[in-house]
Amino acid sequence: MSKIRHNAISGDWVIVATDRAKKPNAFKGDRAKTQIEPHLEHQHRADCPFCPGNEAQTAAESDRFGDENHWRVRVVQNRYPALSPTGEPIRSGDRLFRTVSGVGFHEVIIEHPHHHATIARLPVAEVAEILRMYRQRYARIRTDPRVAAIVLYKNHGKESGASLVHPHSQLIATPIVPPQIRQRTRAAIEFFEETGECIFCRTLTEELAAADRILLENDRFVAFVPHAALFPFQVWIFPRRHTSSFDQIADREIVDLATTLKTVLAKLDTGLDNPAYNYTIRSIPTGDRHTDYFHWYVDIIPRLGILAGFELGSGMFVNSTLPEENAAFLREVRVADLDS
Amino acid sequence: MSKIRHNAISGDWVIVATDRAKKPNAFKGDRAKTQIEPHLEHQHRADCPFCPGNEAQTAAESDRFGDENHWRVRVVQNRYPALSPTGEPIRSGDRLFRTVSGVGFHEVIIEHPHHHATIARLPVAEVAEILRMYRQRYARIRTDPRVAAIVLYKNHGKESGASLVHPHSQLIATPIVPPQIRQRTRAAIEFFEETGECIFCRTLTEELAAADRILLENDRFVAFVPHAALFPFQVWIFPRRHTSSFDQIADREIVDLATTLKTVLAKLDTGLDNPAYNYTIRSIPTGDRHTDYFHWYVDIIPRLGILAGFELGSGMFVNSTLPEENAAFLREVRVADLDS
Repeated sequence: MSKIRHNAISGDWVIVATDRAKKPNAFKGDRAKTQIEPHLEHQHRADCPFCPGNEAQTAAESDRFGDENHWRVRVVQNRYPALSPTGEPIRSGDRLFRTVSGVGFHEVIIEHPHHHATIARLPVAEVAEILRMYRQRYARIRTDPRVAAIVLYKNHGKESGASLVHPHSQLIATPIVPPQIRQRTRAAIEFFEETGECIFCRTLTEELAAADRILLENDRFVAFVPHAALFPFQVWIFPRRHTSSFDQIADREIVDLATTLKTVLAKLDTGLDNPAYNYTIRSIPTGDRHTDYFHWYVDIIPRLGILAGFELGSGMFVNSTLPEENAAFLREVRVADLDS
Repeated sequence: MSKIRHNAISGDWVIVATDRAKKPNAFKGDRAKTQIEPHLEHQHRADCPFCPGNEAQTAAESDRFGDENHWRVRVVQNRYPALSPTGEPIRSGDRLFRTVSGVGFHEVIIEHPHHHATIARLPVAEVAEILRMYRQRYARIRTDPRVAAIVLYKNHGKESGASLVHPHSQLIATPIVPPQIRQRTRAAIEFFEETGECIFCRTLTEELAAADRILLENDRFVAFVPHAALFPFQVWIFPRRHTSSFDQIADREIVDLATTLKTVLAKLDTGLDNPAYNYTIRSIPTGDRHTDYFHWYVDIIPRLGILAGFELGSGMFVNSTLPEENAAFLREVRVADLDS
């Protein structure tokens, strides 16, 4: 019989359907081989707007590490921005048809000059550069009083929604608090009121005690498959130190997070044949000052299946694999070139 | 500049990004031609477990219209059930790791004997038979005291998550209230407390007054693109009569709903080249008795894009089309063979 597991942090319910369980290796065969394959011989493409030499093809640059002609990480405005940084977020419409003007930021973080670079295979130092740029953009944009929340995310591979191969992440800063952040904030406040503890810190303690869903840990981060993982091989990375917003990450933590993120993605890359994935970094709404209850974290979602009618019609999920088995499988995957 | 629209019923926020708007015809070209195409010459397949003659290949039959060898609609248990109807829904685990045993129902409604039948092209009378079976299963299963909510849904086409071509819908009855139903119930209660009105009835009145998102209406149903449509060409069908659970649908309403559903799906089929879609019927939790505030409805979601990192990481959506333009486009699509 299956089990229905509840995620106390997100409020989600997932049916862990063990009767239809697939073995981890089945996911290799399931997927069409349409992924981005790194070809070291094609590190530059003349037709890619994100490749060096084509900088004029992007929208305005807002940040950069390195020289104009030898950049390491580059941030540009999205050419088709979902939100734009002009004017004020005006509310209109009545109770049933509320509308807010689309004020905000939509940036693209070009992670590396090489067209086929991928975090799973980059040196840790270069991954750390990407994370430093995340922090810098995060810190800069959160000071804008029109911004209520910042969503940092990455699409890797076709099934993740990525439309360009060149490695990039995106940042959308919204003038309203998105439902997922609102829901997590509410659950975290409720837990804090009941217990005086941060629900994330408490979850981390209990996951470490249970041990069977832990993927890896180092001095400053822990990666694990959540008890109620909504998707096969979903991985959460929590900082051990309680901080509620990603821009509070310390320099030494950046390096440890780079190692952790690279290792997890390398394990997915090796163990599951470079699957498509999304990741997102979730932080507290930018305006919140009472931050004892919220803890930023990274959420990695391999895209190994399709969200179907049940998921869209209920907000519940069906996971055909056991989180504990996912973690055991990924723990065993050996990552060849981890250089730190 | 884009607009961020709020859906008061679902609590969802969507960025309607007009700057990146696509014209409706663009969706035809966008999609790979991997859809199910009805081939009238292949109405039967020897290798399909849902085709007549292969009844022994399905799990136990739970309902049927017609004779054993000449059925019109047939209901079987899902061969790989997410939930199963044995035992009691026992809760275990503490605050952070709650688990409920996977008790419930997971049925497959085989809509028609023909392998390539599709609601968009079936006679209204045959669509009505499918809806009558939905009602019958809904009414029967809701009497089970272990059931908290019923999710009725359909996957059509590969991108919707459908794994078998033969037309079928599914019903999952859960022992907990799924988050989407909980959220809608909460919002509806709040609106009712404020105003003394059903939020769905009120939305229907206001949509009819605004008129520009209405797709079609008849005596008993209205189909419209919601003000804050999360997806291009999302369509909601509301009954005019206030009833909170689908099993309360009257015989005369069944026929009108069949006409409405068939017409909407035929317009999508013709106007957008048989896109993949999901639909779901949402009702009040089965145990709720105070039903003045909730209204059942049908939600149709064409699968024309991929949910990417922003959507998974925020719970917000980006719709690159205008709901008013979607409605205008679909109003104009002529449906050839509508026979009633």
